[in-house]
Amino acid sequence: MQNHPSRSRRWFLGLGAAWSATLVACRSNTAAPAAEPRALGAAVSPYGSRSKYEKTARFFNQNTKVPLEEAASRTPLHDTYGIITPSSLHFERHHSGVPEIDPSLHTLTIHGLVDRPLVFSVDELKRLPSISRIHFLECSGNSGGEWRGGSTESDVQRIHGLTSCSEWTGVPVATLLKECGVHAEATWVLAEGADASKHDRSIPIKKIMDDALVVYGQNGEPLRPEQGYPLRLLLPGWEGNANVKWLRRLKVMNQAAMSREETSKYTDLMPDGTARQFTFDMEPKSLITKPSGGDTLAGAGPYEVTGIAWTGRGTIASVEITFDGGATWTKARLETPVLPRAHTRFNYSWKWDGKPALMASRCTDDTGYTQPPLGDLITVRGMNSQYHNNGIQAWQIAPDGKITNGNRA
Amino acid sequence: MQNHPSRSRRWFLGLGAAWSATLVACRSNTAAPAAEPRALGAAVSPYGSRSKYEKTARFFNQNTKVPLEEAASRTPLHDTYGIITPSSLHFERHHSGVPEIDPSLHTLTIHGLVDRPLVFSVDELKRLPSISRIHFLECSGNSGGEWRGGSTESDVQRIHGLTSCSEWTGVPVATLLKECGVHAEATWVLAEGADASKHDRSIPIKKIMDDALVVYGQNGEPLRPEQGYPLRLLLPGWEGNANVKWLRRLKVMNQAAMSREETSKYTDLMPDGTARQFTFDMEPKSLITKPSGGDTLAGAGPYEVTGIAWTGRGTIASVEITFDGGATWTKARLETPVLPRAHTRFNYSWKWDGKPALMASRCTDDTGYTQPPLGDLITVRGMNSQYHNNGIQAWQIAPDGKITNGNRA
Repeated sequence: MQNHPSRSRRWFLGLGAAWSATLVACRSNTAAPAAEPRALGAAVSPYGSRSKYEKTARFFNQNTKVPLEEAASRTPLHDTYGIITPSSLHFERHHSGVPEIDPSLHTLTIHGLVDRPLVFSVDELKRLPSISRIHFLECSGNSGGEWRGGSTESDVQRIHGLTSCSEWTGVPVATLLKECGVHAEATWVLAEGADASKHDRSIPIKKIMDDALVVYGQNGEPLRPEQGYPLRLLLPGWEGNANVKWLRRLKVMNQAAMSREETSKYTDLMPDGTARQFTFDMEPKSLITKPSGGDTLAGAGPYEVTGIAWTGRGTIASVEITFDGGATWTKARLETPVLPRAHTRFNYSWKWDGKPALMASRCTDDTGYTQPPLGDLITVRGMNSQYHNNGIQAWQIAPDGKITNGNRA
Repeated sequence: MQNHPSRSRRWFLGLGAAWSATLVACRSNTAAPAAEPRALGAAVSPYGSRSKYEKTARFFNQNTKVPLEEAASRTPLHDTYGIITPSSLHFERHHSGVPEIDPSLHTLTIHGLVDRPLVFSVDELKRLPSISRIHFLECSGNSGGEWRGGSTESDVQRIHGLTSCSEWTGVPVATLLKECGVHAEATWVLAEGADASKHDRSIPIKKIMDDALVVYGQNGEPLRPEQGYPLRLLLPGWEGNANVKWLRRLKVMNQAAMSREETSKYTDLMPDGTARQFTFDMEPKSLITKPSGGDTLAGAGPYEVTGIAWTGRGTIASVEITFDGGATWTKARLETPVLPRAHTRFNYSWKWDGKPALMASRCTDDTGYTQPPLGDLITVRGMNSQYHNNGIQAWQIAPDGKITNGNRA
């Protein structure tokens, strides 16, 4: 606290000039603010909802050629705070719509190369030793439209909104498999959902035994239907589609199943025509979420820049920001908590000089991997695939303050 | 992973006997589970909601003699997971109902002993440097009915449900006060809400400058109306009522205001008739949330015991559990993340022998303070006040498995 009257007049943030236009000198204490209620408000309620003044929503394309049941919706990253994504705004991606499952009838079957196949009810799973972890989930197709020179999409939600972060609660899959007695030759586990299209993926048994969870909780309450209610496979740091929702079956195998979603789909087509398969890791990535595409800066002056960083390989070690298209970089502040395989919030206090700027962030994780320019990814992988774009994502700021997709710059 | 077939038959959890009654041998792979959908599910949606099968709700007393607007609702702690409380289930406590405030009209005025009184709009505050933190909030009256030998309340929600934990986002109050230029003689700040009764509390300026926030975000989205939308004072680790909701005014003063809620209310009446005033810190406390009052154990065998611990003075260092009324204690597992002034989840794998048990937890924080038996609190404070009961809270388990309030044992 600054106790010296002479020094306390300083504008510690250096925001004085910028604020003078917007901050109002204190009104008389006898003048009541306009919004001040004078009557009793609403009563307590069993299950709360947000203010009627808040309208932020997931984005989805109403004009898609595929039925909406085979669709995606995107998190309003520019309008969320901290590291927890509200469950109601967690991105969605499903292949045959969101099934309505009665948890009292749903079961998880574990079979294949095991001594003792078992069927677990949801209640049985909830009685087992559980753990809770905060982890991001990102669709491997997130930012996919940017591979070919930058999309015409306008904002961070539409371009990059297929990533979210929740606190998940469930049972280690290792606990369940040990009960079943896994055979020595087991190398893969096929995970299958109960949705109409029976989405499935083969997962190496090492990941399953390392840190995979069967989760039933999300942000303190039961998993939301769009996220796999009542049970989901959670593979910390791995691409979204492998985290099989509405999980009904784990089959222990000695090879991958080579199912549709890991052969014709969710593979990365390389320049030579071969396809990278089982590219599970989501590599270090960061986004400036505010200000961002669609915003207009009010003029030269101070601005708070905020965003999120994450890595499927460990923990974010640092985030740097550039305003000159990568010529110079400066460190952003990381907010606590900084957790493994979780969104990490970063902030930076910036003073815009009113000139054109190309703004971007890049992160480095605790394995030493630094988020690369998109060009470096293209050099290696070409432009046949849209998956796994963890390249640096830029925003262009025009002299009039308008912000647009900087990947086209 | 256990690769030896001979050893893999072991039941690693030692749960075999208990599970044999409930686990079903694997059905034929051709038999479809009953809940398996065969048609397309629901489409993506703008703002999701929970499954229709989930009915967990806050508890409130419909038969209260005071109007429901002057009331409390309690978090279903036995039915929440991890450390984040869903915003829809965060406990409520208000003195004149939940006001409906238009954020475009709401302002925060800072005045009193400052060089430059300022009025901030909500949008202006959102443009300032922000931080996000995960912190608990507990009502000072939580568990208050237990002071006099244990209440007749039946479950953890009704007895102890006035504590919740969220990720909060906002602006340090120190940032705002430095802009205003605080006078050297300032010692207190009066915080006033915009609810009809203008709830207010005086806060020492040291706390304000240390870590107080004006928050607008909760669990990634705007603060919920019951929690103070659009602005709330957040005082990490301090009793709930001092975290003034619907915050409209901070007046910098050289003395406490001695308002109603810090004189006739929210003081702790001691045996000699004097009252402890400004008892803000919420001291180390823990609760076993499951199994707990109202549950019935199915018989002797293994059970997972889970609960939460927190301290307003720092970070939880350890949690111990007793099943014999405090004669012997054993350490519980702490789940990550363990964060300062946040709920911390603990777990313990227990094998019940079918005999009567008196089960309780006690926590120790990083200042070395260990949660005391309630009797120790009563020795010092007597039984005139119901506030600040952080004594050890027990559950009684009968031979038939029925669990009741152990504070009456």
